Amino acid sequence: MAGNTFGTLFRITTAGESHGPGNVVVIDGVPPGLELSVDDLRPDLERRRPGQSKVTTQRKEADEPEILSGVFEGRTTGTSIAILIRNEDQRSKDYSDIRDKYRPGHADYTFDAKYGFRDYRGGGRSSARETNVRVAAGAVAKKLLKTWHGVSVVAYVKQIGNLAADVPNPEQVTLEQVESNIVRCPDAKMAEQMVALIEQMRNEMDSVGGVAEVVATGVPPGWGEPVFDKLKADLGKAMFTLPAVMGVEYGAGFGVATARGSQNNDLFTTLDGRITTRSNRHGGMLGGISSGLPIVIRCAIKPTSSIPQDQETVTSSGAPTTISTKGRHDPCLLPRFVPMGEAMMAIVLADHCLRQRATRL
Amino acid sequence: MAGNTFGTLFRITTAGESHGPGNVVVIDGVPPGLELSVDDLRPDLERRRPGQSKVTTQRKEADEPEILSGVFEGRTTGTSIAILIRNEDQRSKDYSDIRDKYRPGHADYTFDAKYGFRDYRGGGRSSARETNVRVAAGAVAKKLLKTWHGVSVVAYVKQIGNLAADVPNPEQVTLEQVESNIVRCPDAKMAEQMVALIEQMRNEMDSVGGVAEVVATGVPPGWGEPVFDKLKADLGKAMFTLPAVMGVEYGAGFGVATARGSQNNDLFTTLDGRITTRSNRHGGMLGGISSGLPIVIRCAIKPTSSIPQDQETVTSSGAPTTISTKGRHDPCLLPRFVPMGEAMMAIVLADHCLRQRATRL
Amino acid sequence: MAGNTFGTLFRITTAGESHGPGNVVVIDGVPPGLELSVDDLRPDLERRRPGQSKVTTQRKEADEPEILSGVFEGRTTGTSIAILIRNEDQRSKDYSDIRDKYRPGHADYTFDAKYGFRDYRGGGRSSARETNVRVAAGAVAKKLLKTWHGVSVVAYVKQIGNLAADVPNPEQVTLEQVESNIVRCPDAKMAEQMVALIEQMRNEMDSVGGVAEVVATGVPPGWGEPVFDKLKADLGKAMFTLPAVMGVEYGAGFGVATARGSQNNDLFTTLDGRITTRSNRHGGMLGGISSGLPIVIRCAIKPTSSIPQDQETVTSSGAPTTISTKGRHDPCLLPRFVPMGEAMMAIVLADHCLRQRATRL
Amino acid sequence: MAGNTFGTLFRITTAGESHGPGNVVVIDGVPPGLELSVDDLRPDLERRRPGQSKVTTQRKEADEPEILSGVFEGRTTGTSIAILIRNEDQRSKDYSDIRDKYRPGHADYTFDAKYGFRDYRGGGRSSARETNVRVAAGAVAKKLLKTWHGVSVVAYVKQIGNLAADVPNPEQVTLEQVESNIVRCPDAKMAEQMVALIEQMRNEMDSVGGVAEVVATGVPPGWGEPVFDKLKADLGKAMFTLPAVMGVEYGAGFGVATARGSQNNDLFTTLDGRITTRSNRHGGMLGGISSGLPIVIRCAIKPTSSIPQDQETVTSSGAPTTISTKGRHDPCLLPRFVPMGEAMMAIVLADHCLRQRATRL
Repeated sequence: MAGNTFGTLFRITTAGESHGPGNVVVIDGVPPGLELSVDDLRPDLERRRPGQSKVTTQRKEADEPEILSGVFEGRTTGTSIAILIRNEDQRSKDYSDIRDKYRPGHADYTFDAKYGFRDYRGGGRSSARETNVRVAAGAVAKKLLKTWHGVSVVAYVKQIGNLAADVPNPEQVTLEQVESNIVRCPDAKMAEQMVALIEQMRNEMDSVGGVAEVVATGVPPGWGEPVFDKLKADLGKAMFTLPAVMGVEYGAGFGVATARGSQNNDLFTTLDGRITTRSNRHGGMLGGISSGLPIVIRCAIKPTSSIPQDQETVTSSGAPTTISTKGRHDPCLLPRFVPMGEAMMAIVLADHCLRQRATRL
Repeated sequence: MAGNTFGTLFRITTAGESHGPGNVVVIDGVPPGLELSVDDLRPDLERRRPGQSKVTTQRKEADEPEILSGVFEGRTTGTSIAILIRNEDQRSKDYSDIRDKYRPGHADYTFDAKYGFRDYRGGGRSSARETNVRVAAGAVAKKLLKTWHGVSVVAYVKQIGNLAADVPNPEQVTLEQVESNIVRCPDAKMAEQMVALIEQMRNEMDSVGGVAEVVATGVPPGWGEPVFDKLKADLGKAMFTLPAVMGVEYGAGFGVATARGSQNNDLFTTLDGRITTRSNRHGGMLGGISSGLPIVIRCAIKPTSSIPQDQETVTSSGAPTTISTKGRHDPCLLPRFVPMGEAMMAIVLADHCLRQRATRL
Repeated sequence: MAGNTFGTLFRITTAGESHGPGNVVVIDGVPPGLELSVDDLRPDLERRRPGQSKVTTQRKEADEPEILSGVFEGRTTGTSIAILIRNEDQRSKDYSDIRDKYRPGHADYTFDAKYGFRDYRGGGRSSARETNVRVAAGAVAKKLLKTWHGVSVVAYVKQIGNLAADVPNPEQVTLEQVESNIVRCPDAKMAEQMVALIEQMRNEMDSVGGVAEVVATGVPPGWGEPVFDKLKADLGKAMFTLPAVMGVEYGAGFGVATARGSQNNDLFTTLDGRITTRSNRHGGMLGGISSGLPIVIRCAIKPTSSIPQDQETVTSSGAPTTISTKGRHDPCLLPRFVPMGEAMMAIVLADHCLRQRATRL
Repeated sequence: MAGNTFGTLFRITTAGESHGPGNVVVIDGVPPGLELSVDDLRPDLERRRPGQSKVTTQRKEADEPEILSGVFEGRTTGTSIAILIRNEDQRSKDYSDIRDKYRPGHADYTFDAKYGFRDYRGGGRSSARETNVRVAAGAVAKKLLKTWHGVSVVAYVKQIGNLAADVPNPEQVTLEQVESNIVRCPDAKMAEQMVALIEQMRNEMDSVGGVAEVVATGVPPGWGEPVFDKLKADLGKAMFTLPAVMGVEYGAGFGVATARGSQNNDLFTTLDGRITTRSNRHGGMLGGISSGLPIVIRCAIKPTSSIPQDQETVTSSGAPTTISTKGRHDPCLLPRFVPMGEAMMAIVLADHCLRQRATRL
């Protein structure tokens, strides 16, 4: 199994490369009767789309989805939903010089090691282009979560370089706040500085990393399984499947290393007759199972590997050379990561939503 | 599927609770002909065992494994291997007062929310006791990796509280160095301070968190799958399945947030005729596929939730109360985490080892 | 994945050999709150047990189950249930001469071809001994089906050699009727002849095949999935996983080959206000989904391969030789197949019961 | 999981309905470096295509495949392969009157029971139209099997109604023989009578069932897993996933019911230095593992449910009515079943080929 399927009940299977005809996702496990059309998919695809603003790559892709199956008269049928997004902007000339050179930070070398050869037109299957159909599937998952349980999933940029946003209440961040600026940071002041930093990176022919925060509100207590399919484990995996993610933490995250138990434990209390905790250092999951508190996850995203300056590398036969990535790339991956992070969290939550339903009367 | 299975080809399925008859693992996918006996399992079980030193819980468990199947005349047969570890120290009296109170930081509340009731004798299925059979399975995975590919997996304590060890070359840390002190930190000086800090925690009826580092050397380039079963994703999930893990990062980890692409990219070069990189900020994985460099992962582990001081909480009916955990618990989870982290990494690597074999001539 | 797991949501994983310490099953996906004890497992285990009557093998096995996990205070907890059945009658001497000879009809040769060597003490993993834990898991599935939906699963012997029972209404056969004679045939007159035929086979040092029918009543319409996990496909696979099954058919089965559409179609009608069909040539499944009519499946079971007369064969090095199976074997597998067939059908139905629950509000 | 995925390592996931935009398959697990183009897919698609001859439906579908991913410069890349076949002949008017009536023998009623509503334009997801992408995937599997192991898979019509072909040596039947007549029966004389019978059925506005035989030659000993993923079990399931299959048997099949062990056992011998059996009543599988002998499976296929004569039925609200299927349907499903049966067998064998590779040095 070559790893193109994700999920147990709400399950997606994808195919496609950056410079092939297109990408496709088959979504299995969508319940019948959910209203769905391409209009549900377009907003998040638009947020992920290259060329959307001055802080992203200027490459153009319409990313127009076609629903091939599983929807009849505007409603899901309960059978598998296939969504196709064709590639448009296939300038393979841009990539001809990377045929024999290994781009630093990319999967060129590891793909050659794994398969014996590779599709050298851009990243092929390793390109982030494949995430467009994940975002489409995520939109379906969001619709299910919202319709059945009122669950919302919102992500935003928390940090770029040394610029860290102040977001005191992650669970109160709205989609509107996130979309109010082109870096997708709910701290408007910091957002301006982030835009400036990204433009500086482009001017300096460099790139910069950052941290995104992904938050789900409204998840009822009880989702997630003990032991291997803990919600934190499935969410952790989901985030690490996204390109450039180098670290994932939830709740207090790496901050727990220096904490004491007496400080770190969130104390149980009641609110409006429901059991809850006074703080949320546990990030909404205890024993890997949702507690009813907001689920809060952070992802560390590396600076774009493709930079338009000369870098030392080797050819596939090991000869020293240099490479300068000529393509049009994002100087910072964070703004376009936001819808991807949301999509993967929504897909995991939809899966565990269905799993929990299966065994409770 | 209630999440008691992990892996695709090298696959483990577990069952068992902290206070039931015992824990069992079924390991599917072990190749035939591998020499194996309980002697291969005992060393890591001993490292995970409660009561092993003064810095761990004083609870006693022999953790003696019995191989129920899959081994004949000292060799694996290629069929499923079952390993049973019976529980011995079942003092259920210790836990009688937590029947109706939710322990802060534990899964008591989320289990009740999920299942409607729970095994209240300790953590039941949510207890870290279940990890003993994972460690046994990890020993089998280690044997496979070592025998077939010379791969080694070694973990150690990197940080406890504010005490951070100096480990300049993770790939050179040996099992002997790790086992040379009871906190399992290869920085001997820092290890002494760590021991003192843990004893202080016990005296103060508190607990402390930390960071563990898990390293695999000898992994050939080409393991891992693109998209969903990236090696980083499966390893990330594996670590998050372990109790108390709140964050996972690999290579430069969260440090990438403040890095620039020109600094962060590891440049390709050759060494002894093989392609490699000059640095290892990528933690041995590019595009989710092993690069041949050491795989380096760090896990943030929270301070033990069970502390012997009064904490506010509620009963299952929401009434305010206090609880003080009377059981014998680790003041710091790090020393016993080490074999667990190794086991989960070995299980993931063994899985991807087999997966890579399946499709290459 | 070495094929020791079966099912999607109600999922069993097994391990064990005929002459090892024992067999174990881990059942994943059992809902919480179901009353369960070993007393629920014993009746079917007793029906499968060797040495139960004069028409079965005289080998003795107590087949006493131990529930290792997943049950607390008499109820399932929702976590994985492990059941262990230790082997008792391990007369390995009986099998010493088959170490190098391939028994006709057995898996000795194919195991050697697959694994390079084999556990030569009896069939090892290929022995029908492994089915004891399947029967235990089946008893859990039956309990779930009966408790939640009133579904019953009953199997019986339909034919042995040329002796075919007359069972006009499969859905009306009761467990009591089946258990009223030692061959488990609800046609009492034919049962007597079947007993005589089996005894004749034993006297003639030979064996005989037959057909078993497995029937589920009370299954609501709507279980099963389109395309690959059709109920007929999962039931078909389930039956073929059982040793000695050479053919599976449902409803009109192979009889459809000579039928015309105008005869074969079951016409829809209503009964007591519910939609049903006038006949049940479709065996309770249309498009692979349950129709609400009884599910009726038949399995063809080959005559026992082990017979106590000389048969030509070869050694593992290809030298001609003869072999006569000295062990104590069933002259006819049918009577003991009955609980196995029920178990596998119940496991499939429990799985699809949970799967259907997951996606319907 | 709604059952749209099949296989473990060589794994297909499909989507699509009879009257939607098209059908798509994602094939996961195809090794890298295999030569592949649409020309490899077309021959089998042509054999499955409606409208191919006078004995099939006269409905027209070009069934032109498009490879969307996973192939680069004429070779498979090792990543997932997506194949899209668009629907052309969508005369939804033909089906408007079946919106509220349940067609006998079809899944209309069971889909309504399962999902609450259905795509009433033909069978939707339950239509055999979905098999076109399975046949495309099967062509990929065949290519892998032939290239790596010289395995061939050939199916043919064995019986239609009472007309049973004489095929003394299943393993010697060639594709050319099968394709030499429009019913795909290698017994040329019987083929003529079969054509006449089918034409008679069309004239009588009726349909007829039959038996197909599917044969694989060249499969090495050792494929298949003990217990649940026996080759016979996976092949059995594969066949039962195909529409209209009511029974599956291998080797001596249901004939074993009346056989004695002394007759039924295939005796081991050697041929050209290799171990084999003198006869093949075991159909090429012992203990569920391939023996090296030809794998021989038979499928019973019911007469087409859609017949152009009035049949009694009910509406979705239970009111009595009659229905006569006006569409253009096959009077006999057998000729077009042949490539479907081959495809599913090839997919199972490719899967077990990869699985066996994973764990043997």
